[in-house]
Amino acid sequence: MTKIVLLRHGESVWNKENLFTGWTDVDLSDQGRIEAKKAGELLKADGYTFDVAFTSVLKRAIRTLWMALDELDLMWIPVVHAWQLNERHYGALQGLNKAQTAAKYGDEQVLVWRRSYDTPPPPLEESDPRYPGSDPRYKGLSKSELPLTECLKDTVARVVPYWEGTIVPAIKEGKKVIIAAHGNSLRALVKYLDDIPDDKIVGLNIPTGVPLVYELDDRLKPIKSYYLGDPEEVAKAAAAVAAQGKAK
Amino acid sequence: MTKIVLLRHGESVWNKENLFTGWTDVDLSDQGRIEAKKAGELLKADGYTFDVAFTSVLKRAIRTLWMALDELDLMWIPVVHAWQLNERHYGALQGLNKAQTAAKYGDEQVLVWRRSYDTPPPPLEESDPRYPGSDPRYKGLSKSELPLTECLKDTVARVVPYWEGTIVPAIKEGKKVIIAAHGNSLRALVKYLDDIPDDKIVGLNIPTGVPLVYELDDRLKPIKSYYLGDPEEVAKAAAAVAAQGKAK
Repeated sequence: MTKIVLLRHGESVWNKENLFTGWTDVDLSDQGRIEAKKAGELLKADGYTFDVAFTSVLKRAIRTLWMALDELDLMWIPVVHAWQLNERHYGALQGLNKAQTAAKYGDEQVLVWRRSYDTPPPPLEESDPRYPGSDPRYKGLSKSELPLTECLKDTVARVVPYWEGTIVPAIKEGKKVIIAAHGNSLRALVKYLDDIPDDKIVGLNIPTGVPLVYELDDRLKPIKSYYLGDPEEVAKAAAAVAAQGKAK
Repeated sequence: MTKIVLLRHGESVWNKENLFTGWTDVDLSDQGRIEAKKAGELLKADGYTFDVAFTSVLKRAIRTLWMALDELDLMWIPVVHAWQLNERHYGALQGLNKAQTAAKYGDEQVLVWRRSYDTPPPPLEESDPRYPGSDPRYKGLSKSELPLTECLKDTVARVVPYWEGTIVPAIKEGKKVIIAAHGNSLRALVKYLDDIPDDKIVGLNIPTGVPLVYELDDRLKPIKSYYLGDPEEVAKAAAAVAAQGKAK
């Protein structure tokens, strides 16, 4: 039996301001830093240790990981930064207010953009300053890899090959793995691991800053999964995520 | 012409308490954090950017790097942790007070241990809790790689092959490199780069938290090197390092 830990970054400045973030590189809020530190404390209290960490190239995930590793006294382990673990690209909605967007287009349309499996938000133009092709951190990517927008299906299409191609081999070498990433890149992974149907994943919300443990069998199929920490707090955190993006 | 940046970690808690540190994993002091942040600000102000960072497996160097990368908005670049970039192992002196050790053995003996090229301090026993073989971060090392003590010559013997085998290939690929490490691992590298004779390296002191730039030609030989920041402050910082380990 192998345990892996998934960790969604703590609250970001834009989570707090209720803006669509996607690949925008916004930092943690003060609350997010508290959550990240607490995630590290929970892992430490339960005796978790890790041999390698995977995260995105976005600072809210990286800082969450750094703060957790700091608590765990594991600042020295290898950390792999992968764009494939980035948040879902939110296209032309990036930077817009969720509630205002809901007021303009209706709750239903926004819920489709936020939660439908295969309907992406409106795309960016390549001339848009938000286009990832103009950011040095993505300079190794081919044009087909640089998203203009993504639905969750698109995110699954980059997260799952990364899981299979890079993370699974590390697990099979016996390494203890933590993955610090984002709401939708982790939903993509959980969908794959738990084999959740396309129409059921819409209801799944992963709270920020709460370690999610998967116990996997020898074929790396989940035996069970659970959050660390107080169950009531976890439920409240998940409900808060689900409530975002409503007009009021 | 290629520029690389060497960065000695900011003041550590044990620098401050005047204890021999070596491979002991002590953290930055508050002053060390200020120095690390300032190093990042200096690099940023002069327009430096990096594609990859190398550091040790000791948190005072890692945190210095993290804080500098944070200032530079480069938290996403690959960071390679290498035990070969660790501080010189200080053997059985690790944890002892520098001034008390000098009072007991004499300034001269301590200066020999601190600064002679090929006389190591007294070795650890393998049963000593300070022996690195019992620390999980060194579990991949062979017994011959695990030091019981080191003189600077021993440190050169691990830093230079790492430079040649891992860092030079990255530079030759065109990558912009920063190395965040320690007083003696950086002295080892500087000795090699500048071809400093064994009997001259004793006089070289690298201040904490000040970026040291090397401009290298196509064969990676130094054209020139210089510290960033106010020259007077840099000289003062180097003098403070040189004054450590005297009885009073």
